[in-house]
Amino acid sequence: MPEFRQNYATKEWIILAPERGKRPHDWARESKPETVAAVDPYVSDCPFCAGNEDKTTDAVYVWPSENDWQVRVVSNKFAALQRDLNPVRNLDGAFLAAEGFGIADVVIEHPKHDRTLATMTVGEVEQVLRGYVARQVAMNADDRVNLVTIFRNHGARAGTSLEHPHSQIIATPIVPPHVRYPIERAVHHYDQYGRCVYCDMLGEEIRQGDRVIMETSGFVAFCPFAAKSPFECRIYPKRHLASFFLLGEQELAELAGMLRTVLAKIYHGLHNPDYNYIIRSAPVGDHDTRYLHWYMVIIPKITIPAGFELGSGIYINTTTPEDAAEFLRETDIP
Amino acid sequence: MPEFRQNYATKEWIILAPERGKRPHDWARESKPETVAAVDPYVSDCPFCAGNEDKTTDAVYVWPSENDWQVRVVSNKFAALQRDLNPVRNLDGAFLAAEGFGIADVVIEHPKHDRTLATMTVGEVEQVLRGYVARQVAMNADDRVNLVTIFRNHGARAGTSLEHPHSQIIATPIVPPHVRYPIERAVHHYDQYGRCVYCDMLGEEIRQGDRVIMETSGFVAFCPFAAKSPFECRIYPKRHLASFFLLGEQELAELAGMLRTVLAKIYHGLHNPDYNYIIRSAPVGDHDTRYLHWYMVIIPKITIPAGFELGSGIYINTTTPEDAAEFLRETDIP
Repeated sequence: MPEFRQNYATKEWIILAPERGKRPHDWARESKPETVAAVDPYVSDCPFCAGNEDKTTDAVYVWPSENDWQVRVVSNKFAALQRDLNPVRNLDGAFLAAEGFGIADVVIEHPKHDRTLATMTVGEVEQVLRGYVARQVAMNADDRVNLVTIFRNHGARAGTSLEHPHSQIIATPIVPPHVRYPIERAVHHYDQYGRCVYCDMLGEEIRQGDRVIMETSGFVAFCPFAAKSPFECRIYPKRHLASFFLLGEQELAELAGMLRTVLAKIYHGLHNPDYNYIIRSAPVGDHDTRYLHWYMVIIPKITIPAGFELGSGIYINTTTPEDAAEFLRETDIP
Repeated sequence: MPEFRQNYATKEWIILAPERGKRPHDWARESKPETVAAVDPYVSDCPFCAGNEDKTTDAVYVWPSENDWQVRVVSNKFAALQRDLNPVRNLDGAFLAAEGFGIADVVIEHPKHDRTLATMTVGEVEQVLRGYVARQVAMNADDRVNLVTIFRNHGARAGTSLEHPHSQIIATPIVPPHVRYPIERAVHHYDQYGRCVYCDMLGEEIRQGDRVIMETSGFVAFCPFAAKSPFECRIYPKRHLASFFLLGEQELAELAGMLRTVLAKIYHGLHNPDYNYIIRSAPVGDHDTRYLHWYMVIIPKITIPAGFELGSGIYINTTTPEDAAEFLRETDIP
């Protein structure tokens, strides 16, 4: 029987229609010829490969050193936003506009072309996360910045043509409705119940348990009750914390282990599907707030939102998050 | 210079970054081998071709007659929602859910497999619109229905594998946040200014004029100021009207002419790209409201939303709506 389910925090609805769907193992599509294993570790015209540093802008962050880096963060040469503009709103007739100020970084995650987070060591993944923190802190310091979005596009269906392992960070002067509306719901919940809505949601996911992929002392990974698409995964810190950059050293190491495990389960279990992930933090200046909670969402791109999803915002999910979580729990990684 | 632009009605922002983009004619990708012209008018295993009516459920609407139909509406055999369920909300632990009640129609637009709205006659398109109206009226009459979404998926990138020309209508018991939030903004605008926000937006689009594709006495088609993607097109009635099904006979004929022209310009100018279109009406019971305005949005699927769009809700559009509208105005159709 199909079912509507509501996201406890955002109040968005999805339709779970498993009768139409495949069993989790059906999703494991045949290995792509272009999977990472078949790619060279060095590609001469790749701007992100070690040895080709002159093809990018100067690094804004490197670890451990410019001459022998594992993580190298550069400005996006093809950025949609520019640093030297002024985001003051102005009117174009009756319509509101602003110059396209923003900061757009590319985080080169590894010197070698043939790696991806799922196949790196936990220590390497941890250094990528440390790079995110350093850059989020630097962007927060710009008075014009109000929101920092950290994300990763993996594969053509996820919107990237670049194979070299990388993620991106974009700082914007604007907090858009897509981000603001869930905040308003969270404030409402806090005023009503005196608790963070995400803390309450996490508590319920852990209590029900059948959608949990893994849990450590500080974090939990699960396929959410109202997952919009098959194998949507989320990682939350159990401790109430509104922004990612506030994580401590030990927490970053622990998160790196969990992220690497979940991505490796997706990589091996579903044969390296394309995916997006996003780290959502509170707007700049709201990182001490009691009603927001940072989290990470991983969205394998194995289905296509169509007219109904675009029109109604109600996503049809053909695989239950309970089945997806069980499949991922049972997927072994090397 | 990149620019932020705000949707006047919904308050959503987009980034216009034309430096990164292509000129409109660059988008006209090479003709696909599978374009409509190369397809047979009859395909023996297509459930929607005339002659194969036994492969579908019984028709809930036909025009002009069951034996010689142009438009035939049937229940979706693979519907995500079912008619015989009860949409009462219930709690699953702390989480809200409901049985998956809904009505899901498939509108078969033409008996022949090798047509699409862009290549049908205006009279044929008008009959498709009349089918929408009849079914929207019938769905509105079910007390459990609160929202009727009419949409069309054209091509694999738009989420359909079925070639035969068809659209879909889904009635849901739920008005989700994606639909409700813009309504709340529209109410706010009405209370503030005493006018429909969409009427005001239309007036400004017509006054500025450079994004208008075409205009008739009753309708206007344009690429909106804050278009989310290249060649996003919208069609609005000039007369304030909250729901599509309220259109009069003459208006339906006039709209059919405009819709067919805009789709033909996209078909010929951009070489039959995949697209979604959506007709958004007010929730059931709100069709007399002074603050909502039905409209149609056409979204060619020539770009892929990536992690930034999913995370922030801010879409990066690489082709200005001014350029897109000029290109479409100048595209000749046979």
